[in-house]
Amino acid sequence: MNQELISRLARQTLQRCDELATCTEDSDPSLLTRTCLGEAMKKAHSLTAGWMEEAGLTVRLDGAGNLCGRRAGQEKRIVVTGSHLDTIVHAGRYDGILGVLLGIALARLMEESRVKTRLGFEVVAFADEEGVRFKQPYLGSIGYMEGLRPGLLELTDGQGISLKEALLQFGVQPDEIGRPSIAAQDMHSFFELHIEQGPVLEARGLALGIVTAIVGQRWYTARFEGQANHAGTTPMELRRDALCGAAEWILSTEELARSTPDFVATVGRIEAQPGVTNAVPGRVELTLDIRHPDDTRLRDLAKHLEERARTIAGRRQLDFFLEERSSLPAAPCSSDLMDKWEDSLQAMGLPPFRLLSGAGHDARIVALKSPISMLFIHSPRGLSHHPEESVRENDVALCLQAAWRYFQSLG
Amino acid sequence: MNQELISRLARQTLQRCDELATCTEDSDPSLLTRTCLGEAMKKAHSLTAGWMEEAGLTVRLDGAGNLCGRRAGQEKRIVVTGSHLDTIVHAGRYDGILGVLLGIALARLMEESRVKTRLGFEVVAFADEEGVRFKQPYLGSIGYMEGLRPGLLELTDGQGISLKEALLQFGVQPDEIGRPSIAAQDMHSFFELHIEQGPVLEARGLALGIVTAIVGQRWYTARFEGQANHAGTTPMELRRDALCGAAEWILSTEELARSTPDFVATVGRIEAQPGVTNAVPGRVELTLDIRHPDDTRLRDLAKHLEERARTIAGRRQLDFFLEERSSLPAAPCSSDLMDKWEDSLQAMGLPPFRLLSGAGHDARIVALKSPISMLFIHSPRGLSHHPEESVRENDVALCLQAAWRYFQSLG
Repeated sequence: MNQELISRLARQTLQRCDELATCTEDSDPSLLTRTCLGEAMKKAHSLTAGWMEEAGLTVRLDGAGNLCGRRAGQEKRIVVTGSHLDTIVHAGRYDGILGVLLGIALARLMEESRVKTRLGFEVVAFADEEGVRFKQPYLGSIGYMEGLRPGLLELTDGQGISLKEALLQFGVQPDEIGRPSIAAQDMHSFFELHIEQGPVLEARGLALGIVTAIVGQRWYTARFEGQANHAGTTPMELRRDALCGAAEWILSTEELARSTPDFVATVGRIEAQPGVTNAVPGRVELTLDIRHPDDTRLRDLAKHLEERARTIAGRRQLDFFLEERSSLPAAPCSSDLMDKWEDSLQAMGLPPFRLLSGAGHDARIVALKSPISMLFIHSPRGLSHHPEESVRENDVALCLQAAWRYFQSLG
Repeated sequence: MNQELISRLARQTLQRCDELATCTEDSDPSLLTRTCLGEAMKKAHSLTAGWMEEAGLTVRLDGAGNLCGRRAGQEKRIVVTGSHLDTIVHAGRYDGILGVLLGIALARLMEESRVKTRLGFEVVAFADEEGVRFKQPYLGSIGYMEGLRPGLLELTDGQGISLKEALLQFGVQPDEIGRPSIAAQDMHSFFELHIEQGPVLEARGLALGIVTAIVGQRWYTARFEGQANHAGTTPMELRRDALCGAAEWILSTEELARSTPDFVATVGRIEAQPGVTNAVPGRVELTLDIRHPDDTRLRDLAKHLEERARTIAGRRQLDFFLEERSSLPAAPCSSDLMDKWEDSLQAMGLPPFRLLSGAGHDARIVALKSPISMLFIHSPRGLSHHPEESVRENDVALCLQAAWRYFQSLG
């Protein structure tokens, strides 16, 4: 393998991340905000399509506005890689984007190496993963794999523009709209290269990690109700303080998560009412986010946390209400593909460290119909979803080298 | 004592509470909002002054806008009773008001009984206790006892009108403004009749209670700071969750308050940042309200809670910040006067139950220069600072009877 070429492509990939960061719809051009099918994405597509062609890929815009670049193999089946080009509001420049550009760099490596591959190769730049514009995430990968159903095409953005109208305005062919981009039987497998967006690799001093699964995730709104009262005139023993009940549940939740491997639980938002200094809170609303790689186990953990809350509420004469707001199933990575990543890393002298993905990724949707794998790249300081999100050039070069070995090992 | 007269005066007192409830500045005339020196208070003064005169009191408007009605005694020293005529926004009709009107009923009893009293008697209707208009409570009692200093006269309301201008507009004589209403050496003592605003008497099935002290009170804003992080990608052991730290402190505070007699502690407001479902809270701000009848003990308890917070923060790698926002000293009631209330209740066959006042009252300010006492009247459901605040006619009659005995016992 040409180390010098890989280094050069890694450097170029990061320069391209910088270039794409200028494709923003934010009123402050130094901040990156690029939502699904907007003007900024059109500009990003124009650049990305050029890079795809330069790497020998045949470019198409699919029925969900995803930009796809394909390289034919000797047989029909295709290995797909990719990630998303849309961002959150005030995003970093690597989340999603780096995976797309590394896919293009990999195609370039294939070109430069003049290797004839048995399997085809496709790089896909998903139009939407973050869900900012239409308040629904994964529209790109859903459209790519399954096609966009009428219910999704009728989603509207803040201006009342429907997804279908947005696709037409973006230049998608009317008869393509809503059609899947690929037939599942034509896919060999999917892999996604992505920054970790967390602190695990950094804590272990590692550049790369093999993802074992994208965790299942459930979101709840919980409410404790007691009795609002005067903070001065209500003795402690006559209180029904909803915040003390909530505090007990928060700690109980933390304790269960700490003692349960692979389980994370977070209370991110809390509000006490009436919410003034001199009143005992009569009502507290809080959110709960729980994640685990095993869906059955996650459901049981959710039940257990609800029981704990009801016990606390009962003891404190409070009422407890729990409402599920969303539930996403776990997406396990293919163990065969994980082993191939392991072989690649070991051949490079890197420890084949495996970890969970606690965040959702496009691969979660692809996994419903195809084997998937993911490789995580070290996120300095674990920082993501932030303008200061970063990645090290050397880690990117290692990732490209590993992906090249991995692709070749697929046969 | 004429039981029939007392019953009639109790009924009349409650009718007058209803009448004063119509003196409101709220846009919804069914809701009571009457702030210091406004038009609604002018109307309330007009009614109250009439009732004072009818009860044989000589009426004056003092330099702080308090309405005072005096009955001369054989000697110069005066027993003062009273409470406030201003209200919170959307108030009940008894908080403060009932004490003023019971003072007038007591004067009427003196008239009807044709008793010549050795001590003079004054009923004062304080213009401000709640502090709604000028964001500073106790302006009425401060003005009555000490006079309003220039610093206070310069306070402005939401429209930019100063307290001094408001006093002039209200009809206070320019040369009276800021002068004390009474010389401390002319005061024999002060007593305040007030609804309990809490659940203690109700829990014991009592109509009346003798207040032992108005508790000292301290308000704080506390802050825990950790590290905001992705709720999915940050393993439990790598978190610095500010909300979990705050929850631990809330429970620790509750535990200390429960195990410390006469101590109450309340966290009434809490906010987690960034405050979204899928982020570990990096920063939590919360309020702390603590009250105890002994100022030294209260200071020590505050220190102890701060130490507990620092221990929790240290163990969790959080930072902790604490800011004192206000501190009001405790006001103990005179033990001689408490004994006189006890004699009165016992003579009526009522248990002489003693309790703390966890809420502040005008008597707190008067206590800085005069002996004070307070008698609490049962608050059904402990409800106060609420349109459904109520009081029972029979309890009011018992209070009036007890106050009449008490006043006579002062000599």
